[in-house]
Amino acid sequence: MTASRPRQLHLNAFLLIAGHHDAAWRHPRTEPDRIVDRRYFQQLAQTAERGLLDSVFLADGLALWGNARHNALGGFEPLTLLSALAAATERIGLIATVSTTFNEPFHTARKFASLDHISEGRAGWNIVTSGTVQEARNFGQDTHLEHRLRYERAREFVEVATKLWDSWEDDAILLDRERGVYADTDRVREIEHRGEYFGVQGPLNVPRSPQGYPLLVQAGSSEDGKEFAAQYAEAVFTAQQTLADAQAFYKDLKSRLARYGRTEDQLLVLPGIAPVIGSSEAEARALEQELTELQVPEYGLAQLSGMLGTDLTGLPLDGPLPELPEERDINGNKSRFTLVAELARRDNLTLRELIARLGAGRGHHVFAGTPEQVADHLEEWFTEGGADGFNIMPPHLPGGLENFVDHVVPILQQRGLFRTEYTGRTLREHYGLRRPANRLTSA
Amino acid sequence: MTASRPRQLHLNAFLLIAGHHDAAWRHPRTEPDRIVDRRYFQQLAQTAERGLLDSVFLADGLALWGNARHNALGGFEPLTLLSALAAATERIGLIATVSTTFNEPFHTARKFASLDHISEGRAGWNIVTSGTVQEARNFGQDTHLEHRLRYERAREFVEVATKLWDSWEDDAILLDRERGVYADTDRVREIEHRGEYFGVQGPLNVPRSPQGYPLLVQAGSSEDGKEFAAQYAEAVFTAQQTLADAQAFYKDLKSRLARYGRTEDQLLVLPGIAPVIGSSEAEARALEQELTELQVPEYGLAQLSGMLGTDLTGLPLDGPLPELPEERDINGNKSRFTLVAELARRDNLTLRELIARLGAGRGHHVFAGTPEQVADHLEEWFTEGGADGFNIMPPHLPGGLENFVDHVVPILQQRGLFRTEYTGRTLREHYGLRRPANRLTSA
Repeated sequence: MTASRPRQLHLNAFLLIAGHHDAAWRHPRTEPDRIVDRRYFQQLAQTAERGLLDSVFLADGLALWGNARHNALGGFEPLTLLSALAAATERIGLIATVSTTFNEPFHTARKFASLDHISEGRAGWNIVTSGTVQEARNFGQDTHLEHRLRYERAREFVEVATKLWDSWEDDAILLDRERGVYADTDRVREIEHRGEYFGVQGPLNVPRSPQGYPLLVQAGSSEDGKEFAAQYAEAVFTAQQTLADAQAFYKDLKSRLARYGRTEDQLLVLPGIAPVIGSSEAEARALEQELTELQVPEYGLAQLSGMLGTDLTGLPLDGPLPELPEERDINGNKSRFTLVAELARRDNLTLRELIARLGAGRGHHVFAGTPEQVADHLEEWFTEGGADGFNIMPPHLPGGLENFVDHVVPILQQRGLFRTEYTGRTLREHYGLRRPANRLTSA
Repeated sequence: MTASRPRQLHLNAFLLIAGHHDAAWRHPRTEPDRIVDRRYFQQLAQTAERGLLDSVFLADGLALWGNARHNALGGFEPLTLLSALAAATERIGLIATVSTTFNEPFHTARKFASLDHISEGRAGWNIVTSGTVQEARNFGQDTHLEHRLRYERAREFVEVATKLWDSWEDDAILLDRERGVYADTDRVREIEHRGEYFGVQGPLNVPRSPQGYPLLVQAGSSEDGKEFAAQYAEAVFTAQQTLADAQAFYKDLKSRLARYGRTEDQLLVLPGIAPVIGSSEAEARALEQELTELQVPEYGLAQLSGMLGTDLTGLPLDGPLPELPEERDINGNKSRFTLVAELARRDNLTLRELIARLGAGRGHHVFAGTPEQVADHLEEWFTEGGADGFNIMPPHLPGGLENFVDHVVPILQQRGLFRTEYTGRTLREHYGLRRPANRLTSA
């Protein structure tokens, strides 16, 4: 994003168990017996690194995400897994999702500082507020904190975390063996935070890390989410069904930055896309159809019930959606609710059709085609103001990622849209973003 | 510990920044500029693995441990670092310290299950209750939870964690692609825990891990600590100054097991020892003296003030200790308080002498000598009922660990006291302990 270089795509590999399609684990091209095998994820990360991708990204939830009867659920915790991947890779960024609703800022700031040291500057934090009462119930709460209050807590959480990351100046460590002075303690500060949600004395017990802060990422697209992103996020992952929606979101979000004293190049908008890749368009469509046919309707219905905040159990699959609540009454993922409701309305889908449409991307954009067509599609969104890059969500793993790296990336490179080597060392450098200054440094 | 094998030592490498001596970072044989370098710890872990040690062990605190002006403080968070070390080693166990006072059981159970999967069964959890008000202040509390209540919380915490680890049966995953059945959800259970400190619905979102539970370790030697250990721990790390003290502790702890329906071989007693190794006794003593001379008295005095719950600032270094409180009035590490107070009393030490005696091991046993003498010493404690093995605390790193591995381990092997190859895969197998049965399994 510097003036001297043409604008290029940023691409993350969003890794999820056997792939993003909810029936991927049933497909013969996947390896669901390996979802708690570290080496499986090492191979995926190494594939993504071979493709020069910006990062691998792990989503997270603090409860089982669905009914394990019909999907390959239950796997690694992101910060531990990414620490292991840090030791098995050299350059690729490592983005972990961690909730601000059910964590303490001291722990979270510390673990990300640790991961940033472990990976020599490749850590990113996808900041989420957690959407379900199932998660609350694993932390002593019978009800889930209200959406607006979750974001209020998230803002204070990030404020505390950044203060902790700044509690050591970059040059605080003197290492003067002769005089017996390890650190200049004038440059290691208590943060003395006392707020609505947290009281944290500090300093952190980890020196300032290579990136200063991990890359700050955000993935909510509600009104609260967008405002939070405009204030803090350096990258936003978002689900957009159409280019028009993506353009509107992109413009909206970028326009909010100025009120926080930020410029448009300080935040990258990265929609998710699930590319179903075939050597011909027919082959891609056939693969998509195979995956759809492997879906278990009860599973899809249960997932849809969660997204729509509406119990759909027992409704006829070939009938229409029932009356839905308003977004303001949703206390989970508000923007995903609206996206799914609008998708069904716009295309007049039956429940079965909607479940099929959501199978590969859970609301993220799905595109089936040849590598050339996928590259065209990414280029269009990128050049037409819909995206600064993408979260690549392979419907099936490891093959879907390998296809992307081996067949789509070279086309993007030929078109000058994607790097041909890593020029940076840190994730922030891959993204073309500056290392944050220390806000606690005395003048 | 099986009948078919002679009793052998269990040895952990307790890794701490530049070494355990509080002046190690000033010594030319150490590399304090590498304490946030993952590769430094990888090399240490690989050295320990070359020596066939049972595990590497990381202590932890949730605040800076002392004054960073005079010691190399601030480093990695244990669970992230050990996850990285898992990817760089094959067989050695990985034991992380995590506090039950400032964490939530869902997070902790999940991260250890994740580390156990990542490492293919090599995870261990050193369960601590945290000893300082500085830690409380990083978690919104002005005062530190009372010692007895910390252990009450710890007991409930471990109960919840074990239920979560049992919430997936070992064979819950069916992976029946044909029928679309991933898991047998009759074997994945909510735990529905509602207790004094925690409410946790479950199940965990990680399948049961290779060891079932991580190895459960405990390191407090107070009355509360010993009772907790007798109920839950499979290994106890302890500080014992003399063989007589170690024997008394060993006998006491083992005698408590029966009341929890446990046998003596289900818990290993592992005192810490800081071996100062030289090719001659004179060389070892000279190294010890070098390290003592590098100590910064203000630092030692501050650390001692913490251990004794008494502000010693400004007292003459060559004078005696002031009047001390009683153990019952200490809300930090009670057993360490008593150990240090007794050491000073027994040997009639000045403050300066006490600081020197604590420099290498913070109250753990220090022994300077040749590899032969160190081996004799370990053998004596092991055969005379003082220990089942040891936490090896090299005063300086990496050299102190290399010396132990290259020169002490071979002697122990020649004497039949230590393994000559890894026969097990998991940490529990290294320790000769059984994999725990699932307590939630229906009959």
